[in-house]
Parts: sequence; structure tokens; C-alpha cells
Amino acid sequence: MTLYVNLAELLGSRIEQGLYRPGDRLPSVRALSAEHGVSLSTVQQAYRHLEDQGLALPRPKSGYFVPEEREKPALPMVTRTAQRPVEVSQWDQVLELISVAPGSEGLIQLGRGRPDHTSPTLKPLLRTLSRLSRRQDLNGLTYGCIHGHLPLREQISRLLVDSGCQIPADDIVITTGCHEALSAAIRAICEPGDIVAVDSPSFHGVMQALKGFGMKALELPTDPLTGISLEALELALEQWPIKAIQLTPNCNNPMGYIMPDANKRALIALAQRYDVAIIEDDVYGELAYHYPRPRTIKSYDDDGRVLLCSSFSKTVVPGLRIGWIAPGRYQERVLHMKYMGTGTTAQLPQLALTEYLEAGHYEPHIRRMRAQYMRSRDQMIDWVSRYFPAGTRVSRPQGSFMIWVEMPEGFDSIRLNRELKPHKIQIAPGSIFSAAGKYRNCLRMSYASKPDAKTEAAVRVVGETVARLLAEHA
Amino acid sequence: MTLYVNLAELLGSRIEQGLYRPGDRLPSVRALSAEHGVSLSTVQQAYRHLEDQGLALPRPKSGYFVPEEREKPALPMVTRTAQRPVEVSQWDQVLELISVAPGSEGLIQLGRGRPDHTSPTLKPLLRTLSRLSRRQDLNGLTYGCIHGHLPLREQISRLLVDSGCQIPADDIVITTGCHEALSAAIRAICEPGDIVAVDSPSFHGVMQALKGFGMKALELPTDPLTGISLEALELALEQWPIKAIQLTPNCNNPMGYIMPDANKRALIALAQRYDVAIIEDDVYGELAYHYPRPRTIKSYDDDGRVLLCSSFSKTVVPGLRIGWIAPGRYQERVLHMKYMGTGTTAQLPQLALTEYLEAGHYEPHIRRMRAQYMRSRDQMIDWVSRYFPAGTRVSRPQGSFMIWVEMPEGFDSIRLNRELKPHKIQIAPGSIFSAAGKYRNCLRMSYASKPDAKTEAAVRVVGETVARLLAEHA
Repeated sequence: MTLYVNLAELLGSRIEQGLYRPGDRLPSVRALSAEHGVSLSTVQQAYRHLEDQGLALPRPKSGYFVPEEREKPALPMVTRTAQRPVEVSQWDQVLELISVAPGSEGLIQLGRGRPDHTSPTLKPLLRTLSRLSRRQDLNGLTYGCIHGHLPLREQISRLLVDSGCQIPADDIVITTGCHEALSAAIRAICEPGDIVAVDSPSFHGVMQALKGFGMKALELPTDPLTGISLEALELALEQWPIKAIQLTPNCNNPMGYIMPDANKRALIALAQRYDVAIIEDDVYGELAYHYPRPRTIKSYDDDGRVLLCSSFSKTVVPGLRIGWIAPGRYQERVLHMKYMGTGTTAQLPQLALTEYLEAGHYEPHIRRMRAQYMRSRDQMIDWVSRYFPAGTRVSRPQGSFMIWVEMPEGFDSIRLNRELKPHKIQIAPGSIFSAAGKYRNCLRMSYASKPDAKTEAAVRVVGETVARLLAEHA
Repeated sequence: MTLYVNLAELLGSRIEQGLYRPGDRLPSVRALSAEHGVSLSTVQQAYRHLEDQGLALPRPKSGYFVPEEREKPALPMVTRTAQRPVEVSQWDQVLELISVAPGSEGLIQLGRGRPDHTSPTLKPLLRTLSRLSRRQDLNGLTYGCIHGHLPLREQISRLLVDSGCQIPADDIVITTGCHEALSAAIRAICEPGDIVAVDSPSFHGVMQALKGFGMKALELPTDPLTGISLEALELALEQWPIKAIQLTPNCNNPMGYIMPDANKRALIALAQRYDVAIIEDDVYGELAYHYPRPRTIKSYDDDGRVLLCSSFSKTVVPGLRIGWIAPGRYQERVLHMKYMGTGTTAQLPQLALTEYLEAGHYEPHIRRMRAQYMRSRDQMIDWVSRYFPAGTRVSRPQGSFMIWVEMPEGFDSIRLNRELKPHKIQIAPGSIFSAAGKYRNCLRMSYASKPDAKTEAAVRVVGETVARLLAEHA
């Protein structure tokens, strides 16, 4: 990474962490150049970079300042859950969300978790894919090995080091997206009727897998900044025969928090004490706004009980459907579940991704996306605070590109979606993120696509519709 | 289709059906030109085409003759099965087969069901895939709709007409290969502990899915020419609470037979009488050697109880991982099972296949592959009869590219595979095609790749090793 980006990220994280508060004067160019032993122009570049990210504001003749920020809406409340195992429902609502073809009839899908795939940093991947596609002699056209393409697994093993993991390529299995990784992990550990403890709200894909496999979800109270309540988890482990804990600790979907490392360590200790497996969804972990990226729970796992699931669907593009799993001690079972689900995973996208990673195109791409999504987050929070009624609560995502919005109890986000149909806007109703159908007063919106007038107008319509429904409700 | 190919296929099927026997003189060019109202040169082209296929032999000054055929080995015996539900085993043997990367260390994989992907008729597909891959504005890079790309489903709906089916695009769901179609179908119908009646030998992917989902397989006696015994099936339906019947009636894997239409109709009648679902695997149906292709069981289904599963993996290339399912009355359940397994299927290969089909490239390709595989079948049967010990029994595939070889009782094809390792040859041991691990005295070999000296040498080594092991055994 270049010097100025390093410096910018350092300053950026200090600002985010509140070392410099809104309105504060930032260190002078000269001071920073001396402190970090870099040239004045490097510091100036770093400041311009921060300026682009909306983190620094130049004032003529007086240097750079931390921008005054508008009053932010309150955080969502710590979720309250049933804290007993429940059957999963809401398939119909999920189906509505995923039945829409991309870009169909100009529908603005604020609800769906699609990354921005328009970045120029993806061009090398497309060129490679295009070149490989022409090569008929290539094994990309036939069945691969059930474990996946070895050079790709070696690249993933390298990437995992940033998350604190030392995982050899042989302990990684390529899957058809993170979706298959999670599905195989669940089936590898649990039988129908088994209980899985989950963070709440939680990814609807996992909820629906539990439903389909006839398992029960035990939803745990979750803090919008630190994740699941370990106290509640310990109580649950005492009370119920829990088979596995499934959660998304880094850049959580839908709440965006990053679980503190201390909690991750404590979670491992609990899992070991009660001898349960942990199914860790890290699909957004690489999109944390601060460098270095957060550690995985897997990085604290010393007896192979964590099944780490991820993919390139959020970091690169979903269309390749390439994910992976580091299943620890459960590898043989996971391989079987993966085989019976889809057989081997497509080769061609694996070969293209391997070249993309080997050529070093991934790192600059991911840095760019992190910065873009962080800016978009601030813009989205700004829009929500501007266009949604007072009393609306909003998450503070520390990564990825999704925001969780909480309206007062009694609000109906499914009705909201119906009202938004004529406007060709779709949000994700909160209830699909709960096994029991809670959070109907919440919604999830994506800010992956670059903020533009069209998106702003859409958010405005959502906010105004929310206000109208609340008024009727009152 | 061009005139001469039409004529060639007509004559070809007459020969295959035995209207002209080996050594018979075929109708003169003049006679055929008069009979079919086509030019002399068209008839000559047709005969050259048949000659290429090894179906007609020119004799100077006396026209074309049906070639004398060498004494063929006996057919495999009608399989005898336990005829009670059993737990599925053999995962370790399947894993060995699918753990090998394509073309790894020059291993000759006679065992794996890979089609020949080197045909020039695939070039237009690769060009399209390559062109589409460069287009970043394309929706191919993001998530699609859970049902799959509509224009592709419309093309599949068109193809299905040849198999006697009128299925609108809305009743078709795109899957990640036929593998996912079968897996979703099984889960949509059955719960753990349920009994599924299957043909025997049967595709190991389905066997392993039953194992993984905790279901039991009831293997039915199967005739090497006509498929499962309907009498045995009726008895089983009387005796056991069977939830579904899963079979591959067209170009069966591994035995290659085509179930007669009368049996297909009778099967539907039975399924209706006992109210069970039918999971029909038609993945090889398009590769039947005779035109028109055989009808599906689905084509006789008038109350939506047949789930028709197929893909482009055997007809075009496996690497795209594009399959489909026509789930009849079970569509909603199948969609749910598909979603929880992998989410949506990759878009890019769907877009490329759509263009390939719309442009009319598929039909000439499939005609070419049919002819090639039919020639290769004859060559393979010839090699087996030449290099395997007397008493070896061989299937007579009516389509696809796989042959089933039966050695005397007591022969061990797993040991054979071990003995073949130093020769870098791998066959598929018969036992993986049985839930109970039967058919250990059988093996499956592929003849997809064009017959060459290397393949012949490999088959010879297999035959000689078989002979040696039998001698030791005796």
C-alpha cells in the first residue's frame, strides 16, 4: 500500500475512534511529516484522500479540521428475543425479495445485498475471465475436484492471514457462494430438530436453511455495537441442548457492528466449555472500514470447532458464485454435504479469481471499496436523518454496505414495501431477519451503489412513506 | 436439420432397429433418391455420413452394406437387489472418484462422467461467454432471480418439446447443475427416514444425497435393456411407505438403456395409484443415439407429480454448472430447497447459454455429439470384447457415453482400482452405484473422449488387470 494511503487510514481511524472530535483542528502537514518521517507532499496527499472521504475539511490558511457532523439519529435498541427455540417462518417474504431479476423494470432494490460491481478495479478480473473463456483446451469447462481449485485455495489461505488465521489450503473447501458454505456447515453439524443459537437480527439465508432442514433457531439478544449478548448465550447453553452457534461477528448483516475481540475470545471459551460448534459467517469481514481488518472468531479457535464461511460475492462480484469454507474438524462431513448439494463448483470463475488474486489486483480493489462504502454509509445516515421521521433509529455500520433502520414498535415494514411498489422501490422488511418474524418495525437498506440523486430520491420516498404510515397508525 | 442428415438418421435408425441386418445390402442411391424425393448427391452424402458412423460399408460396384459385426459379449444380468430399504454407504469410494482435479498428473479417468468438451460446435458458446465476460454493465456479475434467467427458461421450454413435454418457462427453475436439481427435488418431497425407490444400479450422486439427508433407498431389480422391473416396483409400493421413485429412464447412468414408452406410461399409472412422486433424471436424454430423442416420463404426467431434472452438463459442458428442474406441483418447495442450498444460480453462464440456444448452435452440436458417442460406444464394446477375459458382460448403451461392465461374482473392482493406480488409470467401481454396496464385481467406464491409442491402451491394461485378478481369485 502506498505511504499516503497508510497515513490517511491511520488518521481516518483516529478520527473515527474519536481521538479528534468534530470541529477539532487536525495536526499540521509539517507536524505529521516530522512525526511519520514522510514528505510534506505525502501528507498533503493523505489529507486530500481524507477530504475525499469526507473525514477532513480544509480551511484556508488554518489547515485541516474534522467536519462538524449533523446530529445523528439514535442507535437501534438492543434486540429483545423470545430466547427459546422457534420454527423459522417468513419464506414468502424472502421469496418476494429474491424473485426480482437484476435491473428489472427500473426497480430500485434498496433491500438486496448486492455490492457495487461497477468499480474499474474489477476490469482485470473481467479481462481474465474473458480470455479464459475462449480457451477450449481449458479444464475450466469440465468438472473440477470436489475440494476446489488448489491455487485458489492457496490464495484464500494467504488472504486469511489478515484475519489472524493460519489455515493451509488443504483445510479450505471451495463452495458455490457463501450460501452453500453456510448450508453445508449447518447440515454437517446438525440433524433435523436440533437447536442452533443465532444472533438476532440475522441473515435470512441461514434462517431459511434452518427452516428447510427442520431445525430450530434460538435467537439471542444482540447489541447494535457489540453483537450477541454473551450472558444470554451462556444462559441458553445452560438451558438448551444447543448444537451450534451461527453468527456474523464482523460487519454484521444486517446491523453492521464488529464484535469486539474480547467477546470473540469469550465466545470461543463458551463454545469449548459447552462443546458446541461455531458457524462463523465472515462474508463482509474484508469490507471493514478500518485497516487492518477485524479478526475472525476462527482466529482464536484452537480445536477446530469453528467453521469459517465466506465468499467473493460481497468483496468482488456475486455473479461468480465462488465461496469457501474452512470447516476445521468437520471437513469430511462438509465435503459430503457440499457434494450432495451441487457436486463440484464451477471451474472457470475459480481460475479467473486465482489470476486476479495472484496478480495482486484484489488488494487495491478492496481498499477502494472500503473507502467508497464508508463514504456512502455517512451519506446514507445523513439521508435517513434528513428524510425519515424523528424517532427513527439507525445502525452505525463499521463495514459492508447495509444499514438497519428501526421505526417505533407497531410499524409494519411489509405494508411499507407494498406502499412502495408503485414507486418501484423495494426495501428488505426486518421480519425476514428473524426466525420468529420479529423486527417488522425495522428495515434494511443497501448503500452499495454510489450515492446519486436517484438513490437520494428513493430514500426520501421511503422516509416520507414511513412518516405517512406512522401518522395513520397514530 | 439438413436433408442428408435427416436421411442418414432415418437409415441409421432402421439399421439399429434391425430392419437391415449385418451383411445386408442397403437400398441403392437411385432407389432412395426416388423414395425420398431428394437428389442423388444428397443420398450419397447421407451414405458417407453413415459410413463415418460405421453403419454403412461401401463395396466397389455393388453399393452400400451393413457391416458384419464381431461377436458381442453378453449383456449384464438383470440386477438382483435386497428389495428392502437400506441406508446408503460408499461415500469414501465416491470421494476418491471426485477428489481428482481434471487432467491431474496425466491420470486417465475412465471412471468419471465427463462429456467431450473439445468439439468445434462449442466454439460459439465460448466466444459468447468471452464477449459477455468483458461487459461490466452486465447483470451477469450480480445476483439473479431465484427462478433463473427467463429467456433461458424459455429456450429450455422449447427444447423440452422434443421429449414430448409442453412446459411453460414459468414452470422451470434453473439450478446449479442437475446435481442441485435432484438434491432439491429429493428434499422437497422427502423427510429424513423416508423411503425412496430407485433403479439399481443408480447414479451415485443421488445415492449420496439420500445418505446425507438420512433417507433410505429401496433398490429395484433392473433390466439392462428396459430398466426397473415394474412388477417389483408394484410389490414394493404395496409393502413399503414409499415417498418417491427416483430413476434415470433415458440413456440410464450407468447402464445406458432407454425405458420403453409403455413402461413409462405404466410407471405413471402406478405412481398415481399409490400417490407417490417421481423424480426423473433426464440429464442424458438428449444424447440418445436415435432421432427423435426418447420421451420423458414427465411427458405422460397429467397431475404434476413428476419432477423432471436435467442440465447442460452432459450435452454442452459441465463447467457452466447450469441445470434445471420442472418441479410440477412441488415448485414452491423446490424453490425453497434451491434457495437454502446455494441461493441464486450464476447469471453469466445462463446469459451465454441463452445466446447459444437462441442462435441455433445447440442442435447441430447435439447431433454431432450423438453420432460421435455412438461410434465411440461401438469402439469401446469392441475393445472390451477384445481385451477383457471371456465371460465379461457389457451393457448396450442407447445413448450418452458410459459403459457398464460386469465381471463374474466375487470380482473386486475396488481392488482393481488400487491395482490400476500405478498405471495412472481410474475406473468407477460398481459399488458406488448401489446404496447397499452391491455390484462390486462391476465397473463403469466413459467413452466420451474420441477413441485414440491412449484410451485403447488404457482399456487394454484394465482388461489385462481384470484377467490377472480373476486368475488369482480362481
